[in-house]
Amino acid sequence: MAKNVNKGRQGIRGGRFAAKASDVMEEINASIDFDRHLYAQDIVASQAHARMLAETGIISEEDADAISGGLDTILSEIESGAFDFKQELEDIHMNVESRLGELIGDAAGRLHTARSRNDQVATDLRLWVRDALDGLDTASKNLQAALIERADEHSATIMPGFTHLQSAQPVTLGHHLLAYVEMLGRDRGRAVDCRRRLNECPLGAAALAGTSFPIDRDGVARALGFDQPMANSMDAVSDRDFALEYLSLAAILAVHLSRLAEEIVLWCSQQFSYAHMPDAFSTGSSIMPQKRNPDAAELVRGKTGSVIGALTGLLITLKGLPMTYGKDMQEDKVPVFEVSATLNLCLAAMTGMVGGMTFDTERMKADAGAGFATATDLADWLVRELDMPFREAHHVTGKLVTMAEKKGTDLDGLSLDDLQSVDRRITGDVLGILNVDDAANSRSSYGGTAPGNVKKAVAKARKRFLS
Amino acid sequence: MAKNVNKGRQGIRGGRFAAKASDVMEEINASIDFDRHLYAQDIVASQAHARMLAETGIISEEDADAISGGLDTILSEIESGAFDFKQELEDIHMNVESRLGELIGDAAGRLHTARSRNDQVATDLRLWVRDALDGLDTASKNLQAALIERADEHSATIMPGFTHLQSAQPVTLGHHLLAYVEMLGRDRGRAVDCRRRLNECPLGAAALAGTSFPIDRDGVARALGFDQPMANSMDAVSDRDFALEYLSLAAILAVHLSRLAEEIVLWCSQQFSYAHMPDAFSTGSSIMPQKRNPDAAELVRGKTGSVIGALTGLLITLKGLPMTYGKDMQEDKVPVFEVSATLNLCLAAMTGMVGGMTFDTERMKADAGAGFATATDLADWLVRELDMPFREAHHVTGKLVTMAEKKGTDLDGLSLDDLQSVDRRITGDVLGILNVDDAANSRSSYGGTAPGNVKKAVAKARKRFLS
Amino acid sequence: MAKNVNKGRQGIRGGRFAAKASDVMEEINASIDFDRHLYAQDIVASQAHARMLAETGIISEEDADAISGGLDTILSEIESGAFDFKQELEDIHMNVESRLGELIGDAAGRLHTARSRNDQVATDLRLWVRDALDGLDTASKNLQAALIERADEHSATIMPGFTHLQSAQPVTLGHHLLAYVEMLGRDRGRAVDCRRRLNECPLGAAALAGTSFPIDRDGVARALGFDQPMANSMDAVSDRDFALEYLSLAAILAVHLSRLAEEIVLWCSQQFSYAHMPDAFSTGSSIMPQKRNPDAAELVRGKTGSVIGALTGLLITLKGLPMTYGKDMQEDKVPVFEVSATLNLCLAAMTGMVGGMTFDTERMKADAGAGFATATDLADWLVRELDMPFREAHHVTGKLVTMAEKKGTDLDGLSLDDLQSVDRRITGDVLGILNVDDAANSRSSYGGTAPGNVKKAVAKARKRFLS
Amino acid sequence: MAKNVNKGRQGIRGGRFAAKASDVMEEINASIDFDRHLYAQDIVASQAHARMLAETGIISEEDADAISGGLDTILSEIESGAFDFKQELEDIHMNVESRLGELIGDAAGRLHTARSRNDQVATDLRLWVRDALDGLDTASKNLQAALIERADEHSATIMPGFTHLQSAQPVTLGHHLLAYVEMLGRDRGRAVDCRRRLNECPLGAAALAGTSFPIDRDGVARALGFDQPMANSMDAVSDRDFALEYLSLAAILAVHLSRLAEEIVLWCSQQFSYAHMPDAFSTGSSIMPQKRNPDAAELVRGKTGSVIGALTGLLITLKGLPMTYGKDMQEDKVPVFEVSATLNLCLAAMTGMVGGMTFDTERMKADAGAGFATATDLADWLVRELDMPFREAHHVTGKLVTMAEKKGTDLDGLSLDDLQSVDRRITGDVLGILNVDDAANSRSSYGGTAPGNVKKAVAKARKRFLS
Repeated sequence: MAKNVNKGRQGIRGGRFAAKASDVMEEINASIDFDRHLYAQDIVASQAHARMLAETGIISEEDADAISGGLDTILSEIESGAFDFKQELEDIHMNVESRLGELIGDAAGRLHTARSRNDQVATDLRLWVRDALDGLDTASKNLQAALIERADEHSATIMPGFTHLQSAQPVTLGHHLLAYVEMLGRDRGRAVDCRRRLNECPLGAAALAGTSFPIDRDGVARALGFDQPMANSMDAVSDRDFALEYLSLAAILAVHLSRLAEEIVLWCSQQFSYAHMPDAFSTGSSIMPQKRNPDAAELVRGKTGSVIGALTGLLITLKGLPMTYGKDMQEDKVPVFEVSATLNLCLAAMTGMVGGMTFDTERMKADAGAGFATATDLADWLVRELDMPFREAHHVTGKLVTMAEKKGTDLDGLSLDDLQSVDRRITGDVLGILNVDDAANSRSSYGGTAPGNVKKAVAKARKRFLS
Repeated sequence: MAKNVNKGRQGIRGGRFAAKASDVMEEINASIDFDRHLYAQDIVASQAHARMLAETGIISEEDADAISGGLDTILSEIESGAFDFKQELEDIHMNVESRLGELIGDAAGRLHTARSRNDQVATDLRLWVRDALDGLDTASKNLQAALIERADEHSATIMPGFTHLQSAQPVTLGHHLLAYVEMLGRDRGRAVDCRRRLNECPLGAAALAGTSFPIDRDGVARALGFDQPMANSMDAVSDRDFALEYLSLAAILAVHLSRLAEEIVLWCSQQFSYAHMPDAFSTGSSIMPQKRNPDAAELVRGKTGSVIGALTGLLITLKGLPMTYGKDMQEDKVPVFEVSATLNLCLAAMTGMVGGMTFDTERMKADAGAGFATATDLADWLVRELDMPFREAHHVTGKLVTMAEKKGTDLDGLSLDDLQSVDRRITGDVLGILNVDDAANSRSSYGGTAPGNVKKAVAKARKRFLS
Repeated sequence: MAKNVNKGRQGIRGGRFAAKASDVMEEINASIDFDRHLYAQDIVASQAHARMLAETGIISEEDADAISGGLDTILSEIESGAFDFKQELEDIHMNVESRLGELIGDAAGRLHTARSRNDQVATDLRLWVRDALDGLDTASKNLQAALIERADEHSATIMPGFTHLQSAQPVTLGHHLLAYVEMLGRDRGRAVDCRRRLNECPLGAAALAGTSFPIDRDGVARALGFDQPMANSMDAVSDRDFALEYLSLAAILAVHLSRLAEEIVLWCSQQFSYAHMPDAFSTGSSIMPQKRNPDAAELVRGKTGSVIGALTGLLITLKGLPMTYGKDMQEDKVPVFEVSATLNLCLAAMTGMVGGMTFDTERMKADAGAGFATATDLADWLVRELDMPFREAHHVTGKLVTMAEKKGTDLDGLSLDDLQSVDRRITGDVLGILNVDDAANSRSSYGGTAPGNVKKAVAKARKRFLS
Repeated sequence: MAKNVNKGRQGIRGGRFAAKASDVMEEINASIDFDRHLYAQDIVASQAHARMLAETGIISEEDADAISGGLDTILSEIESGAFDFKQELEDIHMNVESRLGELIGDAAGRLHTARSRNDQVATDLRLWVRDALDGLDTASKNLQAALIERADEHSATIMPGFTHLQSAQPVTLGHHLLAYVEMLGRDRGRAVDCRRRLNECPLGAAALAGTSFPIDRDGVARALGFDQPMANSMDAVSDRDFALEYLSLAAILAVHLSRLAEEIVLWCSQQFSYAHMPDAFSTGSSIMPQKRNPDAAELVRGKTGSVIGALTGLLITLKGLPMTYGKDMQEDKVPVFEVSATLNLCLAAMTGMVGGMTFDTERMKADAGAGFATATDLADWLVRELDMPFREAHHVTGKLVTMAEKKGTDLDGLSLDDLQSVDRRITGDVLGILNVDDAANSRSSYGGTAPGNVKKAVAKARKRFLS
């Protein structure tokens, strides 16, 4: 995909002329434009393989040394930009091996003993996804850190808690932000589980059936940081469920980010005016210099589409494939590479936005009190203090809200007489619970929004997620 | 979704007439047609909640007993089919609570103290998915058991190992089947991880902000088999990532099943003729009584679409939702329910097919030898015995294959003279490795296809997966 | 899918016990639970087929009459609820044919001459989708009518035009609503194209290869309202692209509806307060009687997920199927049925909401003037009257906006002196264009938001879409 | 997406370090890496806009000439590779405009009069998709031509017609190939409809509300080959349904290609051996020189995933966006560009494969006769000649198939005595219809597989699709 875009406006063929068959085949078949991103993994895996071949006596120490040295050279060449990738050599494996032959001669021809491109690419991709998961974990942790920091700062900042985008009950901004810390915590947990599950080594599966050479699969696995070799060679070369699992957790994470992004867009609207985007993450307009378009948040929200699309795409590609390796599976790389780059960018942008936003706390608090948002507090008081059944308390409260609405006041604007006109048992004590601060403070059950809870949750979150 | 289909050919409205607004709203808003499947979870969660309210002194023991007894009655009514679900009561929660009022009077009105439908439905669905994961684990284990059984039986049955649906190397059928045991093992691992992660209790989050009642969230969590209460009330009522994680692992499992289903369809074709479907899982034709259509395998393959579609659908529904509860989230149930039913059915059908298939082992073995499938064995021999570099051995082998093809024989039909005409160093020893049995036997590296390996792998799989 | 949900909480098997193979097969194989919705199409197609068989002399007139009469009886039985659908008869076709045998005896056995279930079900489904498209067209037209009505009423109602959810320029509410009329117009156009393309008759393709009977395919096609018979029998029984096209246009329509639904949710928030939902389409709360949750709009938005999921699912099911009929294709019906019901419901709900919403036009107008929303008008004036290059006018305007912001006023609060302090060429004429009414009125280029344009567009839309 | 991959293994940020906010924003915000593919459309649209501005007297003729000439220069620079795209200028529009300023000075500042980037990019993308549709049409037509050619050649080549991948009835290869010609015909029809529907011009919608300049929208539309200007400015800048419609038809086409690709993979397996891939479209193996892996067919099949994923992704991105332009919509380009390139490549590869495949017609014919594939012919004969009811004929045939199976012969190996032993009314005439040639020839109803039909269908297809 990526590469085709780069070929021109409509793809090189454009349906405009009868392309030469060999050109079409080279273009559709070659993967070097994208699998070059596997170079570091490919080289390290080849070095481990060569070392093992020497240790088991399958090739000589001299050859292994030559191979390893040659691969070091190639790594430097690639990282310095000096390496000449050739499409006619099709993929990263052949590009590297061919260059190795130029560098060290015949010994290069011994590297491929007891392996195949099938187990080689499966190994490379597992190593790559493992790195991607580690990067994702760090980036997610950075965002958690930013959220926890702001939650600490705003542990007692009152804002409306919404259901159906309607004010329902007052909450604290810190509590709201910590909800995303929890979500990201589970996202990181999924990444950890995926990493553990994929951390088995396919090398040694060879083309599909294993090999007759006396290889040491445990040794290679260990050298590459895998927990163990994979137990079945056909499974090793034909399954890509680790890539699917990675894309799944990425899609769930992207959905989480999209929700926060939506909130940021709302909060930055004039109608909400809860938050101001830092200059660094908004775009303006030379004509309206005061304007701050929350472009970065919109992009984070919009990119959810491509992440979910990548997951869907790879599920489809793998559906119904008979064993073992089919060329369809070459399509596994682009979605993985693109999703990784997208998520890293989105997490970095979100971290910057969360860290840099400023909040209009007065506006938030004013909104929190609108819409009779303490009605449930009143009902709970009736239940607790007067022992009313919940449904009856609900009913009494409804009457009082209607009264307040008619009087054009909020609940804390009703007098004791007003309250007792609906139910005589109501006492003056209730007046102390009808403002938003008290309402928020009262929700001190575990997991509730009370500022004291938030302070404790911040401390706990630092320990659970940041240490 | 499900319910709408049942309303008639085109849905009740059909775009044909101007429906009354109240009817349209009742139909789009009510969820009782599908959330009734939560009844058992809803009742057990309400009983745990009522018990806790009594233990913390929020309601009386008498009321809690009445509530609990009434709910037992309702459970019986539902399971016996005597319960009258009412669409105007909208959802399972109101249907149950309304009936409880009929049964026990005023005490029913105390059940909803210190909770809300928001934490209630989140709890119900977590309990439901937890049960679904347990069912999935058992069903997957049953399929593993069937595969392991057949693998044991066919540890030494030779068949072609395919890449690109071309014969590549001989493998054993047992080894092939065990590859799916590995995949299912990872699928089960994902289910275990999902179960562990979701096993936290939302109850006590109330509408979104927690509650001012002195509830015991730990106690309720424990009573319902949860590991602990969820740490943030807004997260508790607004996230559905556990449902997404469940659907993700279901989609990956469905892809695995689709691959085995595809192979079964291929193997049952006259062109392959590797397997015969048991009567129970094929459909015939009165006109061609010999015919066995592998319908069940096709259905398993085809249903992959709806499973992936359900995952995609829920990801989309949740994308961009601001906190906390929005009515969009009512759409979380149908995909979960349908995927669970679909997978249980597919796993049961696949278990039956795997257990009941018979194999034409002669045909498989004959095919395994075609196409010069021992060419890599010859090349490996040249490397191992003559110390040729791999790439040179590859080249020599290619020449011999071409010679054999011209002579219309397979590799083991070449004479020593033939072999030596290409490379004089070749000795008679090579003749012992060019048939498919020897080829399979030689791949005895860990994870390889050799019959001895398969026997060991079967024993190990029984221990890992079935005990 | 639908049917499985109805089997119980976890599907009948639940992974809990070893189900009997025959039960599993019957459950996975039978389609009667959902394909019964094809009954009317199945019967009318059978009647047309029987009539043609008689007209071509393949069966007798008497037999055709008996068949036709028997089918009429069955239609009545089904529509009155008296028909006994049997799962062991698998599908709608066999249920009907079996009952026909009971009703008319041997003649029933002649109905299936020169056809097969393969062309029969393809015909039934085309007829069903054709009806669904007609229903969709009517329902979409109803929504257009409601939008046009409200646009007419609010042709001069000023509101903010948003980009990035930031006020950008004043627009008229009527213009805003008409944008959706355009989208729905294209949706209807796609439905018309789909209907035309699918309107070819598969009957006569028989199992897959056509038939040796001297049938009259043109006659049957005509009798069923098809434009012509399909040209290739294998294509006729194996493709379902008409269902994919239907689901595609449904998904695009659902996305359009989701955008309007999102706006309604925003407008109903306290922060926007642009619109009030009619009681019929919102849910309240006994505790907060003033609350209006826009549940119906949220459901419309949320259901986008299942519609897109259904499209994705069927694309996946059909991917990679070899010709001609495979049982996988049985999975084509549920997504089509469910999407049709969902869209009819969503369109009806949206029509009701649009028709019943009330708007706070003062609030809208006040917001329209905030945020220097006439800055582009000022810039355009500078270009037009002073012949400034656009980019320079942009720059001058930016300075004036900054000045206004510092003074705490809007642009129309600046004095001529203020204006001339930035650019001396500015004249008093500019003062007449800086309020929102003038701004909206000035955008009278074709397609622009000026009230006069809206009135004309309303008239044109009535002609294009409602007549 | 595309661009991120090119930034390095894990995306530039990699979650590894705290990136500078400005770098993160530039990377997430800039679109020049992909929207540069719009350069030709952007330039031609700007030229048409400038010309109109001059014609309506909004700018001078001299300025318009300067602008047009400058843009010609830029076009040359881009096409020759001399243009320096700058990420800090964000997108293609600003890159072009900035360069225009360098080339022609102040007049460049007048180009943006009466337009905005919002209507500009909507216009560019419509023009691009229009070109893509034209390219797709040509590429699809090329594939149809190849299929028709081979169908003509193989109008009488007998092969098995499959249902459930089981031999059902003999068909002709020509008939089989023409089924795909029909599918592609509908795909092209969808492209034509999409092109017609999108062919309206957004230019003049300006930012979102139209403009106060006296522009000539009809003139610009005409100059750019559009049928008319879009009727509503807000619709013009905010909808992308034309891109969704394009991706939908692309996904359906990809599914069609995947089915043919699957068949090619099957046919090239040793077990089928129906077809040989041309060297140009298969990959070999130096070790097994006889091997032909159908890589190109597998890639076509596999790429279905990314095409459907792109459609899903854009549907998701647009879901729930309030009007009008949001930055999320920047994500509309990559899926469109990638799908276009992918499909052009897949169509070219498929055209090459279809044109170059050779068929083993003897093998196909032999298979066509296996499995009692003429059983339906026998049953039809019984109905036609003996006036048996269809269901009885079905039963009699079943008995004869069982007899043949027991005797180890095919149906045409039964003697008249054998036949009459089951039903005495059977005459010797039946012996003439039990071989595959007769069976195929007999299916001469319109749309049936008979060679004579195929010849006629080929002639008709040439006229319908290739002229």
